[in-house]
Amino acid sequence: MHRVRVRVVEDALDANNTIARANREDFDRAGVTVVNLMSAPGAGKTALLERVLTDTGEVRVAVLEGDVEGSLDAERLASLHVPVVQLNTSAGFGGECHLDANMVRSALHSLPLEEIDLLIVENVGNLVCPAEFRIGEDVRAMVCSVAEGEDKPLKYPLMFRACELAVVNKIDLLEHVDVDLDALLGNLQAVHPGIEHLLTSARTGEGVDALRYWLLARVRSHAAA
Amino acid sequence: MHRVRVRVVEDALDANNTIARANREDFDRAGVTVVNLMSAPGAGKTALLERVLTDTGEVRVAVLEGDVEGSLDAERLASLHVPVVQLNTSAGFGGECHLDANMVRSALHSLPLEEIDLLIVENVGNLVCPAEFRIGEDVRAMVCSVAEGEDKPLKYPLMFRACELAVVNKIDLLEHVDVDLDALLGNLQAVHPGIEHLLTSARTGEGVDALRYWLLARVRSHAAA
Repeated sequence: MHRVRVRVVEDALDANNTIARANREDFDRAGVTVVNLMSAPGAGKTALLERVLTDTGEVRVAVLEGDVEGSLDAERLASLHVPVVQLNTSAGFGGECHLDANMVRSALHSLPLEEIDLLIVENVGNLVCPAEFRIGEDVRAMVCSVAEGEDKPLKYPLMFRACELAVVNKIDLLEHVDVDLDALLGNLQAVHPGIEHLLTSARTGEGVDALRYWLLARVRSHAAA
Repeated sequence: MHRVRVRVVEDALDANNTIARANREDFDRAGVTVVNLMSAPGAGKTALLERVLTDTGEVRVAVLEGDVEGSLDAERLASLHVPVVQLNTSAGFGGECHLDANMVRSALHSLPLEEIDLLIVENVGNLVCPAEFRIGEDVRAMVCSVAEGEDKPLKYPLMFRACELAVVNKIDLLEHVDVDLDALLGNLQAVHPGIEHLLTSARTGEGVDALRYWLLARVRSHAAA
């Protein structure tokens, strides 16, 4: 008897992953390293990028800005003379809370892929769903503000597990909030043992050089691969 | 000719709204006022409730805690000897980023509805999807931290439009962050003209009495209706 085997596709994100792989192939073909940058609302992604992108040496950078509505962050970054493309997710009911691979794909033709080395995708501010949707990135990084409290890795573990780098921002506020940095870093390691972290303040500039170095190192290691 | 008219249900949230109405009927029958409390991660919902719930007079309160994972906030509030029920959304892939009416319905049997006057539902920390899902509440309130920046109403307008109250928290940090409070309040009124707001600091206690008064007034107006 001939047995027919039915393969059940259990991964609800399979369509997204398929498109993410297609994005990744296009990025690789153009020699572009892609960083998916995520955080809660107001953690300071744009403020950090404003500092980081003032001087990236020979590395040519573009930014894909994800927001539910508006283009406030894109306008802030465009003043740095970096190519910025805005993606709004508000076409869905009330607005999608994350970027997915298809949204990023729809923006590919607007991006000067052949003229850049690094694409930073600033995702929608949200600690849950952005971590669930691959967009074709090489690496994922997230920013958390010390003002959000030391318990966030425990409450949103998938986000902290999904990323290779956690940027702990607004450390200039440490003395003004009831947050124990050691506890925060301990919680981070508890949910993602070995994850890299950087301490930064977009306000004072502390740690900005280290973040820039980290991002540019991703381009170098990608080119060497 | 007999014409058959097909009614197309365009509202993708219709099932949710149906269940939300059923929840509301159960809450009304038990004489319980329900507040859906929302915010970005780490804005201070739990810290405010810790202050507010120390003394609610004759008004009997319970809390329904929504989190992707864990029960950290529920444990904090349980120490106030307030009934707390934990709802985790992590059953979905990676965890749902909001509470919906069905999740709340699944918790109804765990809530002492006949013994309380006010139920505060602390939603998952997220400025997008929680605003899209009614859960059977009487009123919606949100907390934003000044540390998140003055642009949040413009970037997440649905959340600010959906709520009857915006609690601007962590105002003790105002002098330590580059945020213009007038601009924040202006943006708030721009997206939701006439919305009430309160200025609070869970850390110093400023505005906590006003928030408590606002919550208890919802119970009084509900009882009088």
